[in-house]
Order: sequence, then C-alpha cells, then structure tokens
Amino acid sequence: MPFAENEVTGRLADYVVTADPRDLPSHVRHEALRSFFNIVGCTIGGARHEIVDLADKTLAPFAGPQQATLFARSRKADMMHAALINAFASSIYSFDDTHAQAVVHPSGPVAAAVLALAEMRAVSGDDLLAAFALGVELECRLCKAVSVPPAQGSMAWSGTGISGGFGAVAAVGKLLKLDTERMRWAMGIALSQASGFRAMHGSMQASMMPAQGAPVGLRAAIMAERGFTASPVALEGKYGFLTVFCDTPDLDALAGGLGTRFELLSNTYKAYPCGIVIQPIIDACLQLRNEKGIAADRIARVDIQASPGTMALCNNRNPKNELQAHVSLHHWVAVAFIRGTARIQDMDTETAVRDPALMAFQDKVDAVLNPAIGSDGTEVTVTMNDGTKFVCKIDHCIGSATNPMTDQDLERKFAAMAEPAIGAARARELVAKTWGVGALADAGELSRASA
Amino acid sequence: MPFAENEVTGRLADYVVTADPRDLPSHVRHEALRSFFNIVGCTIGGARHEIVDLADKTLAPFAGPQQATLFARSRKADMMHAALINAFASSIYSFDDTHAQAVVHPSGPVAAAVLALAEMRAVSGDDLLAAFALGVELECRLCKAVSVPPAQGSMAWSGTGISGGFGAVAAVGKLLKLDTERMRWAMGIALSQASGFRAMHGSMQASMMPAQGAPVGLRAAIMAERGFTASPVALEGKYGFLTVFCDTPDLDALAGGLGTRFELLSNTYKAYPCGIVIQPIIDACLQLRNEKGIAADRIARVDIQASPGTMALCNNRNPKNELQAHVSLHHWVAVAFIRGTARIQDMDTETAVRDPALMAFQDKVDAVLNPAIGSDGTEVTVTMNDGTKFVCKIDHCIGSATNPMTDQDLERKFAAMAEPAIGAARARELVAKTWGVGALADAGELSRASA
Repeated sequence: MPFAENEVTGRLADYVVTADPRDLPSHVRHEALRSFFNIVGCTIGGARHEIVDLADKTLAPFAGPQQATLFARSRKADMMHAALINAFASSIYSFDDTHAQAVVHPSGPVAAAVLALAEMRAVSGDDLLAAFALGVELECRLCKAVSVPPAQGSMAWSGTGISGGFGAVAAVGKLLKLDTERMRWAMGIALSQASGFRAMHGSMQASMMPAQGAPVGLRAAIMAERGFTASPVALEGKYGFLTVFCDTPDLDALAGGLGTRFELLSNTYKAYPCGIVIQPIIDACLQLRNEKGIAADRIARVDIQASPGTMALCNNRNPKNELQAHVSLHHWVAVAFIRGTARIQDMDTETAVRDPALMAFQDKVDAVLNPAIGSDGTEVTVTMNDGTKFVCKIDHCIGSATNPMTDQDLERKFAAMAEPAIGAARARELVAKTWGVGALADAGELSRASA
Repeated sequence: MPFAENEVTGRLADYVVTADPRDLPSHVRHEALRSFFNIVGCTIGGARHEIVDLADKTLAPFAGPQQATLFARSRKADMMHAALINAFASSIYSFDDTHAQAVVHPSGPVAAAVLALAEMRAVSGDDLLAAFALGVELECRLCKAVSVPPAQGSMAWSGTGISGGFGAVAAVGKLLKLDTERMRWAMGIALSQASGFRAMHGSMQASMMPAQGAPVGLRAAIMAERGFTASPVALEGKYGFLTVFCDTPDLDALAGGLGTRFELLSNTYKAYPCGIVIQPIIDACLQLRNEKGIAADRIARVDIQASPGTMALCNNRNPKNELQAHVSLHHWVAVAFIRGTARIQDMDTETAVRDPALMAFQDKVDAVLNPAIGSDGTEVTVTMNDGTKFVCKIDHCIGSATNPMTDQDLERKFAAMAEPAIGAARARELVAKTWGVGALADAGELSRASA
C-alpha cells in the first residue's frame, strides 16, 4: 500500500480538488465522452417511460422552482427533483453502462447531477466533462473496492445505490471548486446516505435506488459549500463507510494510482435494452437473420447454448410485462427473428410483450446450459422447417469489454432512443451537441436542448 | 418462532394496516402521548438553532410550495422539506428520546412526517397519535431486531438512520389508509433507503442522518399510494434489509407479539440536553447545590466516580464549542454549580462554552472510573474551601428507564425549550394543545400553532 489507511478520504478528496482537467489522458477523456454520450441518450430514451411519469407526477407537488430541465418534458423543476427524475430515466430500461468488473452503472447519477447544476451555475462544457470523468472514476473505484476480490463484500448491496452518491458529489464538488476540507465534508454527507439492496430488483424501486445518488451528491456538495460539516474520514474512519459496507476493502483499488490508472476505461455500454447476459444471444439471432436471410415463419426451432449466468437469470419464457421481458431470453429471440430489432419499444407491455406472434414464437426457443460459455458468449442453432440448420457462435458480444460499442454504435443507439422522444431533427441536433459538449461555453445549453 | 421467516414484512404491514387505534391499551397510548409531547418540545427547542438555520437556508432554494409548517419559523415549505428540517431540529441538541435497549431515537422522524402530512390531508388528532404510536413501535422493533442480542449487528450503523424511515413510513402509510399490498411497497421503498453510520458523530451530519427518515418515509408512503412498487418482502427477502444490516436478526423482537408486547413502553426521555451518560452527574450536582445550599465560589474541588461509558465518551475537559460541550462532563458540572441549571442555552458556544467562569470552574472537576457504577448512576463528592465535604450518590438518574421523567418533568422540559422560541404565552398554548392532541378534530392545527 503506497499510502496510510487513514489517508483514504483525504487522498481521494485531494485528488479531485487538485486534478487539472488537462491532465486527463486523451483516451480517458474520450472514454468519459463516450460514457457521457451514452447516458444522455439513455436519459432521453427513458424520459417518457410511464414509470418515470409516475415518479415525476407523484413527486412534482413537492418540487421547487424551475431551475433545471426535465429531459424530454416541457417544464423544469428544482435541481434536486430534476436530477432525481433524469437519473431515474437514465436507468429505467437498464440500458445504461456497466463497469466490466464491479456491478455498478456509474454514469447516471453523476451525469444527472452535473447537468442540473450546469443550469444554475456557470459551467463550461469542458469543465463539466472533466468533473463527470472524475465522478465516474471515483464511483467505479469505490464500488470495486468493496465488491470485487480481494474485497469480500455482500452481493446484496446495490452497487450503484451505495456508490452513486459518491460519484455525484465528487463531480459536483469539483464544479463548485470546493477546497479539500469541504470536499471531505461533502463526501461524508453523501457517503452517510449510501443505501440500497438488490431485493428491490424487478420492482419500480430498483431504478430509484441508483437514481437517488444524483440528488444525494448534488445536495451534499452544496451543503458542504455552505459550511455544513461531516466526518472528514467518512470512508476509513471508525464506524465509517468501509466498516459497514465491506470489512475487507481493496484500498489500492480505491485510492491507489490516482491519475495514472483509470477504472473509467473499463466502462461498457449495452447494445440492447435488456439483461446483460441476453446481449450475445440477440447478437447471434440478428446475425443469422440478416446474413442468412432467415424468415421467421420458416423457422422450426431455435436452440441456444447459454452461459451459467444467462441460465440463472434470464431463462424465463412468456414474460407477462415489461419488467419481466427485461430478463427473458425467449422474448428477445422472438423479437430478433420476427422484427429484426432489439429496441426499447420491443419490450413495451402492450405492443410487444403481449404481441401474439412474439408470444407464439417463444415456444420454438429452448436454452441449455453450456458451462464453457462465458457471460458475453453463446451458440445459437436455427433449424428451418425444411430441416436446414444454421449456426452462429458468439465469443464476445457487441458491448462487451472485448468487443466494445464503437462511437458509431453509440450514436445509432442514441438516435434510436432520442427520436421517439424529441423527433428526428432535434435528436440529430442533440447528438451533435452531446459529442461536442467539450466545446460548449455554457454546458447548461445541453440540458436545455433535451427538454 | 410463532411465524414463518418469510412472513416478516407482510406480518408487520398487516399489523399496521389492520390495527384499530382503540385496541392500543391506555398505558401504551399514554406513553405514545408522552413520546409525542417530548418530541414536539424538542422540535420547537431546536428549531432556531444556527445549524438548523444553515440547513434550512441552504436547502430552501430547492423547496416547493408552502404546504407544511417549519416549527418556530414564519414560513411554510413543501412537506418533504418541512419534515426534514423539523426532524433535524428535533435532534439537534440530542435532547430527544432513546429506547432503553436499542440505541434509537425513535420519535423525531415519525413525528415530523405525520405532522407534515396532517397539514395536507384531513387527519384527526386521535388518528395522528395512533399512527405515531404504530410508527414508533415498528421503528424500535426494527432497530432492536438488528442490534440487541441475540442479534449481532454492527455498532457502526446509526440506529435511527437505518430504522427511522421505517417508523415514518408505517405511520404515514397508516394515515393514508394504505392496503397491505401498498403498505408492503411503501415499507420496501423506505427500507431500501436506510442509511447512516456513526463516523458522522460530532459533525452536523450526525443529526441529519436520523432526520432523513422523515422525508424518506413520507415520500415512500405517498409513492406507494400512487402505485409505485417495491419488493413486498423487503425485510426478509433474498438480498433484503436483514441480509445487509444483520444476518442474525431477532425475528421475534421484530414481528412477535404484535399488539400485545410494546417496545414503545421502553422509550425514555432525557432530563438534560447532553450525552446520556452525563445525566446522573448533573442530577447529583443540582441536588447538592439545591439541597445543601452550596455556593460555587466556595467549592475547592468536585470528585466524580463515573461509569465506564461516561469515562469513555464524556471525560472531556474544556470543550471548544457546542458540539464538544455536548459530551463534556466538566462543562456540565460547572454549569450545574454556577448556574443551577442544565438547559439548551447552557451549551451555547458564545454565552456558555466560552464563559470564563464556567471554563475556570472545570479545573476543579475530576472524574475517575468506578466499574461498579451503571450508566445511569454516579457518586459526586464536593470539597468546600473550608474542608467540608458533601456527597451525593445517584443509582438511577431522572429520565432513566427505572426513574422516568414524570409528565410534569416533561412539561417543564417542553416549556423551557418553547419559551425562548415562541414566547411564554404561545408556549403555554402549545403545551396544552400537544397534551390534548388526541382531541383535535384537525391535527394540522398543532403544526400551525408551532410556527
């Protein structure tokens, strides 16, 4: 360990406070831009979801002045409400990002927090992107430090729930130019609100747990700016964060190699809006359909060799609603062969999950376990009515760490989500503005373009 | 165990939903009234504290419409903001209540939540008091179940932080007349936001952790009312609350004997606004001063035999500010002998902690460990300048479980806190209205009388 255990919070705070955006290597900066671009698209994509509507409508009576934009809506709200609802939208389809090792979806809380702030304070796009990068970096480090071996953390915690506020507070604290003392307080305030456990998965609250990190971090940084105090050693102090969330933390993963080693580079982006272990199966089905010209109505059966993770989580035929479709490989195989797509609208309860053609096709789909297959792989065999067979094997699906989404892939993903929400012309404008965020003199422009 | 483990959340939800206020035994109902009376007084007492001002002013720019009263202030705010600030005020002096076994201060989050709701929905005082009783009961049960042996929980968690939202959601859910399904969702939403660890003690955030329970519970109940879902087995479900907060929970303490055994009856109320282990020392000093007519300027020295807890936490001479005075027995011995009081104004940084006479007197005070003394006891020996000695031994201080505050004690405590905030006449009116809350047709009247 190149540093004392009692230096953890101070070291992280000091790193964020003193980091010069120009010191971020260009490939790190580009990955930050990709993460940011992806999450802005996910936020627009999820913004008009009925569950997001429900949360917004239920909480709007308690919201304050029109300070920050609610994505894809025609009104603003106070920064905290906007940050919460936008972060909620960003993860409602679980289409956001995932660190390749720690199960954390880092960008949502950080992006929603800094975007809300940028409408109230003067923030350049360049500063916003750098602060976002630092927040995502610290959030991934924290989650990794308490959940990836050698750390022995509990799988029960929601990774984003317990680390999202930390990412958001670091990013907002950077934009507020907090000094190290106040950054430590800000981190303490946010860390002491870390919460969330996986029993909520499958319910609406599942996406609310990570979303809370946005207002928690935003509020914490603003309170510390005004002098509200917290423990300066919230992570490593007696009875602190590390005591309760993991008594065998990986302190080097948390606070080693700051500025030279970047967890941000291990961030990945899904190609399809569903459970991550279904992604390779969709890849294979779309390849077969498109390259072999397979028509769905001539398919007799589809046999899938699947990884242990896929079988444990997603071997669920005939889902009844969108939340169940999310984790049903049968649903997505049917969608891929019949529609040739795998979009957010392809899991809508009324127009997709209960589509008789999609439901009927699922009877032809069978999955079996192949322990030799990794979580980003599969082998799909299609048998046609005439007995012809076609096989497609995927080792590393699109969007995996080994076969990442290209910038063009991310742009298609963004456009497909944004167009239904704000129309094609404004979607194109937002794509350009988001890729170009670093050049904006006023980063608030980006949020306003998302209304 | 008289019930299956998988019935915990459902059993608790069902109890709250079906409980008839008239089924609460009269002594339980009276203890609930005492808890409620005490916390209303603490809320008024803390409302104008400068740290509460800071929190209110910092968060007010994000607050919504004028729905609920901010105690001892001349404006209202949205229910969530009011609930947060009022709950924060109720614990800012740590003068609130404490369960005799579990280290939880149950009333603050519950009272602030139901009082805020009562200004927006029609709630009778009788219903409000019954809902408050149920919320406090469930909160104490939850904290006890994860922290008192046979449960082996971590001392690092903030007891009120992790259980306050559960108390608030049960109470508000009762007032909203949620059915069992929605009560389970509401509990799940609140439980998944349970947070807080003791590293924050000594900082401003220490009182914010328990305060968060009020808006968390209030929001959760309102969201569930509108159909926002969560796991229906948030406590006992796989990867649920009990998995993460204590893997050896006392399920009988949590969900056994509902309606017949009441943890509420073990709630206690402090006589003085400072660390609970200083209370017996103040008792002894005030008794000596008042009964023996001891004048402070004729005292040569004060020798204290103190419990292990007192020595570990409060053997701190010459505090520099209010938060430090909170846990300094030397400060309070000086206050007791010189001023003959032990009030919230006696720990004000400028007018008390830095009072030269109080500072000088502390040099005469020495404490030594006596392991035979319990945490609610002490033996104080005063040696006068002429060599005369006076001794006072306390076995169970005022406010302990064995020697509880009487209703008259509580009333004096309330009046002393309320008078500086809202004047003597309005304080008397509020005392009467709070004791008589059960008879109010509109419980919102009580909050409005606290402005």
